[in-house]
Amino acid sequence: MPEEESMDPMNTVTCTAPVNIAVIKYWGKRDEDLILPINSSLSVTLHQDQLKTTTTVATSRSFLEDRLWLNGKEEDINHSRLQSCLREIRRLARKRRSDGDAGLNLTGLSQRVHICSVNNFPTAAGLASSAAGFACLVYTLAQAFGVEGELSGIARQGSGSACRSMYGGFVQWIMGKDDDGKDSLAQQVEPETHWPELRILVLVASAERKLVGSTSGMQTSVQTSCLLKHRADAVVPDRMVQMINAVQKKDFTTFAELTMKDSNQFHATCLDTYPPIFYLNNVSRQVINLVHRYNAHYGKTRVAYTFDAGPNAVIFTLERHVPEFVSVVQHFFPPEINGGQFIKGLPVKDSLLPEDLVKAIGLEPMPKGISYVISTKPGPGPCVVQDPSEHLIGSNGLPKTTV
Amino acid sequence: MPEEESMDPMNTVTCTAPVNIAVIKYWGKRDEDLILPINSSLSVTLHQDQLKTTTTVATSRSFLEDRLWLNGKEEDINHSRLQSCLREIRRLARKRRSDGDAGLNLTGLSQRVHICSVNNFPTAAGLASSAAGFACLVYTLAQAFGVEGELSGIARQGSGSACRSMYGGFVQWIMGKDDDGKDSLAQQVEPETHWPELRILVLVASAERKLVGSTSGMQTSVQTSCLLKHRADAVVPDRMVQMINAVQKKDFTTFAELTMKDSNQFHATCLDTYPPIFYLNNVSRQVINLVHRYNAHYGKTRVAYTFDAGPNAVIFTLERHVPEFVSVVQHFFPPEINGGQFIKGLPVKDSLLPEDLVKAIGLEPMPKGISYVISTKPGPGPCVVQDPSEHLIGSNGLPKTTV
Repeated sequence: MPEEESMDPMNTVTCTAPVNIAVIKYWGKRDEDLILPINSSLSVTLHQDQLKTTTTVATSRSFLEDRLWLNGKEEDINHSRLQSCLREIRRLARKRRSDGDAGLNLTGLSQRVHICSVNNFPTAAGLASSAAGFACLVYTLAQAFGVEGELSGIARQGSGSACRSMYGGFVQWIMGKDDDGKDSLAQQVEPETHWPELRILVLVASAERKLVGSTSGMQTSVQTSCLLKHRADAVVPDRMVQMINAVQKKDFTTFAELTMKDSNQFHATCLDTYPPIFYLNNVSRQVINLVHRYNAHYGKTRVAYTFDAGPNAVIFTLERHVPEFVSVVQHFFPPEINGGQFIKGLPVKDSLLPEDLVKAIGLEPMPKGISYVISTKPGPGPCVVQDPSEHLIGSNGLPKTTV
Repeated sequence: MPEEESMDPMNTVTCTAPVNIAVIKYWGKRDEDLILPINSSLSVTLHQDQLKTTTTVATSRSFLEDRLWLNGKEEDINHSRLQSCLREIRRLARKRRSDGDAGLNLTGLSQRVHICSVNNFPTAAGLASSAAGFACLVYTLAQAFGVEGELSGIARQGSGSACRSMYGGFVQWIMGKDDDGKDSLAQQVEPETHWPELRILVLVASAERKLVGSTSGMQTSVQTSCLLKHRADAVVPDRMVQMINAVQKKDFTTFAELTMKDSNQFHATCLDTYPPIFYLNNVSRQVINLVHRYNAHYGKTRVAYTFDAGPNAVIFTLERHVPEFVSVVQHFFPPEINGGQFIKGLPVKDSLLPEDLVKAIGLEPMPKGISYVISTKPGPGPCVVQDPSEHLIGSNGLPKTTV
């Protein structure tokens, strides 16, 4: 790396991208290389005030090779899915140039990139960091290379669910039919402003390493689970229609029940996989029972859960139910004494816990089962960060902080 | 109750019946009253030396009403399924008499019955005691009333899986098609002598009360799980053919893999039920992982698990693998120190536990997760007990022991 004084000019751009949580789950690919799914899926984009990835891309003639730093640690840039994204963005940039559209950043096309990416949440929390990560990478690279337009098909090639993080609010990933995957794209169903009362609580289960990664897990499921095939072919198409309808109408009951049923069915297909895959643990099951008993007590579906390929619960509810439900969670999962803050994110008012509610739920409290709760809501898609002081790469072309 | 000296003559008969464990699972009824299933199933009858129900039926003109004692405690005889069995047996006895077949016990037809039944295993162990119980009831009543021939259709009306306990060895319950259930019967596939090397280990998980009973559980599953419907319609028919074939050929690998897949699929449909039903707990999941890692270590399917509507594991293996596998179980589920006998039933030789096997399995031991192991094998169907001293009802018409 040349010294700063001898460096050619550097073009730097920084963007952020959100995490999304699927309410109709994606599990299983029909094409491993292009990352084409066996069914459509639908997600809610979480607000970046609570959960986001930030990525800086710098280009310069002085850079001798593409390099990548994730959360302060240099990583191998030759990861095939990362290379897919880089290749596709450069291809689009070349195409744009050959089409005669002279963008500002076209000089960077032949230049190497330095990429630096950080999450504002612990990777170990088991949140879908790859979706936010690849969405942010593709969005930032597109800015750096002056590429515009549909980018979800490129993000999809980094990590399937990353395509849904390219939009805010309520997003569907249409599975598509083409062999080349050109029609397997994300699309916004409703923006983040559509349903202002909707709230999301991420219940972070006490750390436990994922035994089976989702890439290999879904491969085994596709190969061995006959229930998964039936789900993809015969169950999900109807559910997508119902879910889009529920979102558009802001019909919480239908939204919540479909969300829970679809989470359960996804985990059912994991259990039908051979050998079976377990992502739910005792804490997850306690959350599931708690939610059903909470709703049963009120005779209404006030709260819904969903679980991805890990034990963390993501809870959907309406703003007015948040304080009470959080106090229920605190009661049945007593936090560590003298531990850090139990509720992070959007402030949650204190709430009295009715004695009859506690009795009606009637579960044995599970101390320390949940480390903390992130309180958030639907949020926007990827954004460009305007303030240059927030670039993660310094004027010497290297990350400002490393571990 | 009249005193003994003034009692009319009493006719007493005692029989025993076995527990069975399904390897193709029954879950879901198409008719709740007749107990007609949505799919066929297949089970192995466990040996009565280890697990059995014993039932004595006494008839006498002196008895004023039908009465029932279960495990020493008087129970309500008006339970509708019990009444179905009593009614059906009496109907067959009348039919036999009107057909002119003068049996020995026909005098008892108008008489009331006293029924006394005990299990030689703790009900709390969560073993399918209702199957053995109803099989034994129907078989013993048939003896008392001089009824012969096909009885599994009557046992089925007591408890679905009881029909399979009417035969020894390997038994299928053919779902049938008729609305009146006449063709929904059990049938022996192979007798208990067919596969002498086959061994069965019941791993009794530390007591945990069943949250959802199987009757209401399967009702909810039929109403809410679209995966269950697909399983019954499209998956089980092929599996029945494959399983019967594997049993007939004594093909352990196919038998074992189908057994595990079918257990997992049954529990998957429970999870796809709304609200979801969980029967597997942490101990069950540890057993599942242990079995897969054990088999993976040898590159062969030596051992299979299956779970009914509870956390107990039933293990199938061949005689030569029993000692080592039991020592694996003891290693990963260290029994309570100074507790009772860990291995009950058929004797199991001590076995050295290879260090590389322990490493290959690599699970965290779960102390006291399993209370004890019952070592058994396939066994015969219901039997008449000849020795009058074993009658559970004394000459006064009452149970010899009560609690």
